[in-house]
Amino acid sequence: MSNRRIGVWLVGALGSIATTVILGALSFRKGTKETTGMITETGSFKELGLVSLDRLEFGGCDLRKGRLRDAARHVVRETGALSSEFLEEIDEDLMAIERDIQMGTVRNCGEAIRKLSVSTLFDEGSIRQEVAAICGQFRSFKERKSLDELVVVNLASTEPPLPIQEVHHDLGAFEAALDRNDLDVVRASTIYAYAAVQEGCPYINFTPSNGALIPAVVEMAERNGVPVMGNDGKTGETLVKSALAPMFLCRNLQVLSWEGFNILGNMDGCVLDHPENRESKIKSKDQVLSKILGYTPHSRVHIHYVPSLDDQKTAWDYIHFKGFLGTKMSLQFVWQGYDSLLAAPLVLDLVRLAELAKRRGESGLMPHLASYFKAPMGVEEYRLNEQFEMLLNYARKAGGGDDRVA
Amino acid sequence: MSNRRIGVWLVGALGSIATTVILGALSFRKGTKETTGMITETGSFKELGLVSLDRLEFGGCDLRKGRLRDAARHVVRETGALSSEFLEEIDEDLMAIERDIQMGTVRNCGEAIRKLSVSTLFDEGSIRQEVAAICGQFRSFKERKSLDELVVVNLASTEPPLPIQEVHHDLGAFEAALDRNDLDVVRASTIYAYAAVQEGCPYINFTPSNGALIPAVVEMAERNGVPVMGNDGKTGETLVKSALAPMFLCRNLQVLSWEGFNILGNMDGCVLDHPENRESKIKSKDQVLSKILGYTPHSRVHIHYVPSLDDQKTAWDYIHFKGFLGTKMSLQFVWQGYDSLLAAPLVLDLVRLAELAKRRGESGLMPHLASYFKAPMGVEEYRLNEQFEMLLNYARKAGGGDDRVA
Amino acid sequence: MSNRRIGVWLVGALGSIATTVILGALSFRKGTKETTGMITETGSFKELGLVSLDRLEFGGCDLRKGRLRDAARHVVRETGALSSEFLEEIDEDLMAIERDIQMGTVRNCGEAIRKLSVSTLFDEGSIRQEVAAICGQFRSFKERKSLDELVVVNLASTEPPLPIQEVHHDLGAFEAALDRNDLDVVRASTIYAYAAVQEGCPYINFTPSNGALIPAVVEMAERNGVPVMGNDGKTGETLVKSALAPMFLCRNLQVLSWEGFNILGNMDGCVLDHPENRESKIKSKDQVLSKILGYTPHSRVHIHYVPSLDDQKTAWDYIHFKGFLGTKMSLQFVWQGYDSLLAAPLVLDLVRLAELAKRRGESGLMPHLASYFKAPMGVEEYRLNEQFEMLLNYARKAGGGDDRVA
Amino acid sequence: MSNRRIGVWLVGALGSIATTVILGALSFRKGTKETTGMITETGSFKELGLVSLDRLEFGGCDLRKGRLRDAARHVVRETGALSSEFLEEIDEDLMAIERDIQMGTVRNCGEAIRKLSVSTLFDEGSIRQEVAAICGQFRSFKERKSLDELVVVNLASTEPPLPIQEVHHDLGAFEAALDRNDLDVVRASTIYAYAAVQEGCPYINFTPSNGALIPAVVEMAERNGVPVMGNDGKTGETLVKSALAPMFLCRNLQVLSWEGFNILGNMDGCVLDHPENRESKIKSKDQVLSKILGYTPHSRVHIHYVPSLDDQKTAWDYIHFKGFLGTKMSLQFVWQGYDSLLAAPLVLDLVRLAELAKRRGESGLMPHLASYFKAPMGVEEYRLNEQFEMLLNYARKAGGGDDRVA
Repeated sequence: MSNRRIGVWLVGALGSIATTVILGALSFRKGTKETTGMITETGSFKELGLVSLDRLEFGGCDLRKGRLRDAARHVVRETGALSSEFLEEIDEDLMAIERDIQMGTVRNCGEAIRKLSVSTLFDEGSIRQEVAAICGQFRSFKERKSLDELVVVNLASTEPPLPIQEVHHDLGAFEAALDRNDLDVVRASTIYAYAAVQEGCPYINFTPSNGALIPAVVEMAERNGVPVMGNDGKTGETLVKSALAPMFLCRNLQVLSWEGFNILGNMDGCVLDHPENRESKIKSKDQVLSKILGYTPHSRVHIHYVPSLDDQKTAWDYIHFKGFLGTKMSLQFVWQGYDSLLAAPLVLDLVRLAELAKRRGESGLMPHLASYFKAPMGVEEYRLNEQFEMLLNYARKAGGGDDRVA
Repeated sequence: MSNRRIGVWLVGALGSIATTVILGALSFRKGTKETTGMITETGSFKELGLVSLDRLEFGGCDLRKGRLRDAARHVVRETGALSSEFLEEIDEDLMAIERDIQMGTVRNCGEAIRKLSVSTLFDEGSIRQEVAAICGQFRSFKERKSLDELVVVNLASTEPPLPIQEVHHDLGAFEAALDRNDLDVVRASTIYAYAAVQEGCPYINFTPSNGALIPAVVEMAERNGVPVMGNDGKTGETLVKSALAPMFLCRNLQVLSWEGFNILGNMDGCVLDHPENRESKIKSKDQVLSKILGYTPHSRVHIHYVPSLDDQKTAWDYIHFKGFLGTKMSLQFVWQGYDSLLAAPLVLDLVRLAELAKRRGESGLMPHLASYFKAPMGVEEYRLNEQFEMLLNYARKAGGGDDRVA
Repeated sequence: MSNRRIGVWLVGALGSIATTVILGALSFRKGTKETTGMITETGSFKELGLVSLDRLEFGGCDLRKGRLRDAARHVVRETGALSSEFLEEIDEDLMAIERDIQMGTVRNCGEAIRKLSVSTLFDEGSIRQEVAAICGQFRSFKERKSLDELVVVNLASTEPPLPIQEVHHDLGAFEAALDRNDLDVVRASTIYAYAAVQEGCPYINFTPSNGALIPAVVEMAERNGVPVMGNDGKTGETLVKSALAPMFLCRNLQVLSWEGFNILGNMDGCVLDHPENRESKIKSKDQVLSKILGYTPHSRVHIHYVPSLDDQKTAWDYIHFKGFLGTKMSLQFVWQGYDSLLAAPLVLDLVRLAELAKRRGESGLMPHLASYFKAPMGVEEYRLNEQFEMLLNYARKAGGGDDRVA
Repeated sequence: MSNRRIGVWLVGALGSIATTVILGALSFRKGTKETTGMITETGSFKELGLVSLDRLEFGGCDLRKGRLRDAARHVVRETGALSSEFLEEIDEDLMAIERDIQMGTVRNCGEAIRKLSVSTLFDEGSIRQEVAAICGQFRSFKERKSLDELVVVNLASTEPPLPIQEVHHDLGAFEAALDRNDLDVVRASTIYAYAAVQEGCPYINFTPSNGALIPAVVEMAERNGVPVMGNDGKTGETLVKSALAPMFLCRNLQVLSWEGFNILGNMDGCVLDHPENRESKIKSKDQVLSKILGYTPHSRVHIHYVPSLDDQKTAWDYIHFKGFLGTKMSLQFVWQGYDSLLAAPLVLDLVRLAELAKRRGESGLMPHLASYFKAPMGVEEYRLNEQFEMLLNYARKAGGGDDRVA
């Protein structure tokens, strides 16, 4: 097990996923060692010298002004995970982490997100000034905690899609646009990602916000030797979809329609209830079927806000398919899972694997992490099992001292 | 495409699966070319010289005395497949096939099946005499139709489990038991399988009846150069299970319980309502989870007879699993499919692939057909995608003129 | 049983509900006597002298130019009801009815409906001219068939909501608006309803289109001695809702959220996929909960077009409720029914009961028909069982020669 | 509000329902006033002078030797109701109540229940001695707490059915059988019920055990002026069934099959996994459909033990029905509720209403409580809404000072 000190910078640090990530690491530190849901705790990853969960240091930023303690209480109450006794036990740890949560930026985040924000440090400045301020946050956190590495994870609310233009495809052109403070080319997520890569911090986009890992930022990551990956953590309905869709191929059954309805009641659901934010989400969920099946059945993904559900996302998918002699049959599923508790272990996995990749000298996209994402960048493989095989192969090679990783 | 004349001998020829197999082949012959549900009609199998669907000749046996025409009408009415006009069009073909449906044996089939049978040719004789009579049926059908090959498929109702003893593990000992007419060592399915292998006919056990491919019969198949495979066609709930269960591994989520409820109303459902017959079925469904997960969650499979459903099998599976920090979540699915229409294309696939294997000189078990079975013999791989990969690999090698097939 | 000759004028005569109404009556006439789904065929209605199903004469109008025979074939193929043999048997009857299907009007129907229409008789004329033409259609049909009575039923596609103004609340003012050809005050449904009431024809609005039974038209119905009723036939999800919601009252369980998702693939679904048309539908579905529960939980009804489902409407409702000590629990249901086959028997019931009401000298709204409608006019009772009790009470009184009906 | 001191004697006092009853009353006493799920807290019952929840005194008996505190902790952890802080707050109250929990009897309870019992006070004695001992428990509790009334509620695990003989139909004959210590004529539940009625304590059988309110005991209740009622609290699947089944009548839709599957993991589920105990439960669930529909569709109720679910009972019901022109359609529902939290408010309601009935001088069965039971004694009405109307009518009359209650 590595002895290096690794920091995790959570963008959206007061949200329920980030809070659960912190709770999970603290719970491990306090001795529960309950790591169900984490792949990096299974046998295949034992030999990779991954950073231990109890050595992670957390900081981050948020637009809201809440208390981490309240966010933690909310998670515990809504999900039944852990206990209020445990919350008392870790109260000081939470206070300490809270001191490392800074203000973030709401640049071009859309109305839904802006309404959530209390204030923002960067209202007045140029993009370059914002980038500099954020880089400063990273550096100061690393110094304060004597960190060997800092991994940045985007867990913020989903932004409206960023219209991708030519300027996003070329690092030089993009830098020039920043220099002339062209406000149309960035969203908040772009600024965090750019800053992370500039500072050499591995970066994970766990959200569908397409503004984060634009081609220019990926190009910079390749040049700077920084591993990055996204988009959109695959936690629920899409996870099931990517496991089930190949079944229809294995039987030459033709999917006629695949209609999915998601209801949830947390902040994520609230923001996604806004059509422009929802658009990002639905886009990253939508391509899975076509990529797996090789054709595009009638398919729509719907997301609706049902406050009483809070973090318990519920999804109903109705799959209509054609079988032998043209007969129609169906498969339905109902998924009921706590969004944050499904996401948090993936975030912890990704942090550890991103740190490993950096240490191994990898740069740019990390296609072996495809199984973690709804819309994995640089990967055409959308079948869950095959994606998982890619991860195991990577672990095998990395564990065997093999420098050339597939 | 092969020009050879291939026969298909259907044990349980008046049942709905057999009837649908025949309807499918006739529909193809009449020009519909609707082959959704058949893997052997997809690209990967084009180069293998598989027998064309319109060159298959059907015969078989049954315990009931019904008309094939009525069975066909029943399938059409209950599933909405094809049309009554089509039935009129093929009426003479059905009459012709019906003339090749012989009486079968009910030897040790259990009470539920015996009650269905009208009469049986072999009431009085010894096992050896029964075997001889059945071999005679095979031979005479082959001659009458000038067949190059005859594939035997067991589609009969599920028998009670045959208690496997030492005598079943050794061909010599088993032959000796037959010689002394030891009635305890066989069920009807054993007799058909033994006769098929003796006659050199590739044999497929599409049912869970464990009496069919006992080790001694497999041993004989290996010696005689006869390919055989079973058990229990994977058409519905277990298909979904073998596609979904690996997902929990890919996320290190712990399955706590997987409770499955199947309701159906066809003859199969009626026979499976008898506890002793159900036992066979449930056994072959039950091992899937343990084999895939590597541990055994609380899991039971229930099958109940609901007459109004007829052929439309409906299954509800409730999967309870543990996620991060010990929280419990769930996935449910409801599968609604026409049993016969799910099974028939698999049977047609298996007939074609068994004939290919015989032609290629393979003998004994055909592990590359694992994806077709709930309890594939000689195979430890129960994950659907990996099983399918085995089939594609086989097709690739067989298509490439490679004689050594994995 | 009454010997009077009763006509049924179907607005939307080529749609699947109208076609199924006709198929049902013809099937009865040909001897099947299969009346499952019709309340007026149960014991409580035997003494009321309701018109026999085999004495109904059908005519109507449509915007499309299709053949009734094709519509019938479509219904038979998609639902599995009846048989193609039966279709042949009634081919001439269908041809005869088709000759009585006239062109309709698309006045202010919205883009979605207009696109479906091939041509319209009334493109040029004033509203008054349209009314006169439609009255002419009614009269000429009555004469041609020597009818004692003609019941008009609106089965047309859902229109966008008509903004209700002061002018709609007063018959005089409304008539004046028609006189000055004020095009903003009517939709097609208004014109049919107005014409029906003017001609003394009982009128049923089986659709959610609020333009049909505006207050002024109801006022005219009261004056003219014409019974009318609406809105929106209660066939599926809302039916279940009105049966289930009272359960939560009977247990003092608090409904937190009731989120309903409807998917369907027929013409109705296609039109409802247009937001402006959907608005009408969702409105009439939406009030059920508040009326029953006495408070308004979080609740939305969603309707989406999934072509492969055709007439088989599928609905998933997720009901989240609070129980003792504040714990959250849930009830989900999935409804799978053929829309037309659920609606048609209700239409036949309504025609018979409207004819009875006219004969009994009733005029204006028929609140005893509340159980048939999603948004019953003039009724505050939304609980299914209580609504049904109202119908039985009416039947009891009408059967007992009691002239004063509750 | 009545100032009388009322005791509640819980048979099965350490079970989860009893524990939740106690938790609910204590939570009310401590000020939460959360009474969702209780009908007697709604407006219609305000004027009846029902005993206030915070004046109830709890005692009872159990076969197990556990701590009430642990049972309470279990309920809180598994259901998410209340909090561990609350548990600390009421710890002394629980200790006090625990001192009033006595040993019970396991007489003829069947193997499944006997295995749960640690010891029993009455191993040696005759039935008459057991009755006397239990009467003594009641009397001593009443004296110790200065109670005006004691209501006895059977919440014990379901016993195997008691074969009802002639002797059970006549009080004299039954008393004689007790005198000669005929062990075949009683189960534990009989002894409690007989003792309660002898002591003049209103008695509620919340379980399906048919041994409790045998005709002879009801006869004695009528003579002694003691109100009694049962059987089997209607909390989940059957509740939904009794709300939904009338819908099919209101539409003249024919139920073909209604197949219900219940899975649960608490003690109740564990005991019901034993076929002989399950038989009692299934019997009381089974008659609902026939009573409501007037005919008996294919219908079976299944109950299975799935430990991981603990108290969260989950039920899937598949309802297959025939609509117009013979087409088959379906309705499915999935019910997910905490068994104890559904049952406890009913128990509190029943205690208050039984005390009221006693005070009002009623004796024998209380048919107005039908809506609370799966198999209400002396009642032919099984439709939920109508049963509820019976309760409201009773409340109206009792509230209006009307002595003659329907």
